[in-house]
Amino acid sequence: MVAPLDVGHRFQQASNLALNEVVARRRAAGEPLVHLGFGESLLPVPPAVRDWLADGAGRTAYGPVAGDTAVRAAVAGYWERRRLPTAPEQIIVAPGSKPLLMALMAVVDGDVLLPRPSWVTYAPQARLLGRPVHHVPISARYGGAPDPDALRETVRGARRRGGRPRLLILTLPDNPTGTLAPPEAIRRLCAVAADEDLLIVSDEIYRDLMHSPDLPFLGPAEVAGDRTVVTTGLSKTLGLGGWRIGAARFPEGPLGAGLRAGVLAVASEVWSTLAGPMQEVATRVFAEPPEITAHVRAGARLHGIVTRAVHRIVTAAGADCRAPDGGFYLYPDFAPVRHRLREHGVTDAESLQRHLLDRLGVAVLGGHHFGDTPTALRFRIATSLLHGDDDEQRGLALRSPAPERLPHVASALAHLTHAFGTLTAGEGTTPA
Amino acid sequence: MVAPLDVGHRFQQASNLALNEVVARRRAAGEPLVHLGFGESLLPVPPAVRDWLADGAGRTAYGPVAGDTAVRAAVAGYWERRRLPTAPEQIIVAPGSKPLLMALMAVVDGDVLLPRPSWVTYAPQARLLGRPVHHVPISARYGGAPDPDALRETVRGARRRGGRPRLLILTLPDNPTGTLAPPEAIRRLCAVAADEDLLIVSDEIYRDLMHSPDLPFLGPAEVAGDRTVVTTGLSKTLGLGGWRIGAARFPEGPLGAGLRAGVLAVASEVWSTLAGPMQEVATRVFAEPPEITAHVRAGARLHGIVTRAVHRIVTAAGADCRAPDGGFYLYPDFAPVRHRLREHGVTDAESLQRHLLDRLGVAVLGGHHFGDTPTALRFRIATSLLHGDDDEQRGLALRSPAPERLPHVASALAHLTHAFGTLTAGEGTTPA
Repeated sequence: MVAPLDVGHRFQQASNLALNEVVARRRAAGEPLVHLGFGESLLPVPPAVRDWLADGAGRTAYGPVAGDTAVRAAVAGYWERRRLPTAPEQIIVAPGSKPLLMALMAVVDGDVLLPRPSWVTYAPQARLLGRPVHHVPISARYGGAPDPDALRETVRGARRRGGRPRLLILTLPDNPTGTLAPPEAIRRLCAVAADEDLLIVSDEIYRDLMHSPDLPFLGPAEVAGDRTVVTTGLSKTLGLGGWRIGAARFPEGPLGAGLRAGVLAVASEVWSTLAGPMQEVATRVFAEPPEITAHVRAGARLHGIVTRAVHRIVTAAGADCRAPDGGFYLYPDFAPVRHRLREHGVTDAESLQRHLLDRLGVAVLGGHHFGDTPTALRFRIATSLLHGDDDEQRGLALRSPAPERLPHVASALAHLTHAFGTLTAGEGTTPA
Repeated sequence: MVAPLDVGHRFQQASNLALNEVVARRRAAGEPLVHLGFGESLLPVPPAVRDWLADGAGRTAYGPVAGDTAVRAAVAGYWERRRLPTAPEQIIVAPGSKPLLMALMAVVDGDVLLPRPSWVTYAPQARLLGRPVHHVPISARYGGAPDPDALRETVRGARRRGGRPRLLILTLPDNPTGTLAPPEAIRRLCAVAADEDLLIVSDEIYRDLMHSPDLPFLGPAEVAGDRTVVTTGLSKTLGLGGWRIGAARFPEGPLGAGLRAGVLAVASEVWSTLAGPMQEVATRVFAEPPEITAHVRAGARLHGIVTRAVHRIVTAAGADCRAPDGGFYLYPDFAPVRHRLREHGVTDAESLQRHLLDRLGVAVLGGHHFGDTPTALRFRIATSLLHGDDDEQRGLALRSPAPERLPHVASALAHLTHAFGTLTAGEGTTPA
């Protein structure tokens, strides 16, 4: 008999995917839950996309690790239309943007700098590769990017203590806060990156889901093009999470070429290439024909309406919460009503997540999963699963002029109003 | 301007995939090359398989990290039919078996033990994760598994020097030698694994391509079931390399559960899940309907005929070469004619690979890519690309009673006879 192997301390399943499986089991058992715990878009996929998959069925051979020329040209065109001149030689496609992010951390020999809070997977990927992580606070106005002054201070402090901070990861717009770092912040961050010789990864997987097309978007690749890698994917904008299609754009010049060669090396040893039929889909989608653009735009509008509705609910219940700019997340802070929550035995992010799930039928991910202070009363809300339980309901929401008034959406919002109201109503105890 | 990043020393693209891209470029430029450098099966895919992909187009949601219940049940059934009782809870599917192998190395906290030679990707994966590798010689009769006595000696020697050897990887049948470790060797290796508390990964991706269905196959999971993980995939047996479908079977019991939980954790942070449409394909293929079984059997027969023909050619040219048992590889040793090769300036595996490619129009991968002694005159031959240049030629080869006599196959074999004959004919110089 061989001894059990204790891997639990070192490896735990990604908290968002794990929670998603818990919610699926409880719902299958009949529990009425409002699922705000998983950032998955299930909006109906345009029918043409399914045809494109079938068109790619003949692509059974391995092909180049980076993806074939056609798919890389399509992705380059996508970034060209976003003010970033791009050659196909700067592109790699992959089964999702996750493995690309992991490969970038593997290739850059140095520590990782993350906003606090930031997406659940960045820090575990760094741990998997033995890369130290430095968390840098965000400002009160936006997330996805650290406060520039705090970044400089963290880098210098880490170096004084023998650390080697090198790779800064930004999320534009952000998961978990749903906000976009403004152009001025990006310029200041790029200046710090230049002074301190940092490389930047700009995770722009939510970029096409800005709620208003008028909000100015400035990515670090436009400011610090020689040191910025941009990543994206089709999971969020097109509801294709289960197809695993991601892409990265590397800088022009020797640094970019070296980074890309390193990521290709890791790719060749870990995932070989993006599956051929998925390369066919990516070739067609990244070309952005009008049916795709219109579909993405409609989804962005829907996400904006529903996310703002939930924002009103949590702020009415007493939370502080940055107003959302894009994607489908909110990151409320219940510190202003900490005394009320204590009446329910809720004293930190973990007990808050548990109380919401077990007592109030609301699944969220506590801020501790995002690298945030465990004692803070913060959590992430994903609104992307509020549009309905099946394709018919979700299609209705996508086309409706007032989706928040559709009965199935309104009833979920009413559940939330009641749940957060109950959480913070309290018994009138005096704040301690 | 940011300084270039030198990643070349630490990361190089997988040598087989890199060579494949070189060959594609040279052929596109009109060079007549016989490509023995890439282990890709391009045999025509049964038409039903393409329909199954289209059937899976509706699967756009993430779903469970391990794969859904149906695909895990199908894969469990596949192993049940191979004398391994298996529950769906013991299975994980993934985008190829490569990421599963990488995740296993990440989860097992210890050094990796590899046969010398072994598949090009095992050692780089270990390096990526910072895991030390110990190479153990194979015997003169078979590869894919180290000599049991040498294994024990290596483990004990490594421990005396402070190493922590823990994970033994076997390849059954083998890449690069094309041979199968016999049952007696597996029993002895499992005894060493029990004595030394090693975990075993049995990479059985070529298992269904045994040239004779009568050769006895004994896998370590049948002998040391509590400490053996088995991996497989559809790239080799079904010519679906470009679809990236792999699977792993974990042991029953606490060790297996711990290992699987760890691999799921890594999966959730690196690749999320196997794409939904590919899960549909895997569900249908691993159920092994008669059309699939017959197709795989026909492919195995063809691989046997062509691989044996090339075996005759290299041994006639003076090489030592183990006779192949399964898959589509040979691993000749030109040591007996070292003096002849020296006349061409060929003195090691690297110069031998280069001479064959540049002077004789034959692409192979030198033994140094497989962890073998760089001065040995050994290389790997992959015969899987000799069946034709298009689906029509390859379909003919698959159905032919004597595929080696088809003009396009015979002409490639004649090229090889001439090339290896020229390599070893020499000028009659006295051996030094």
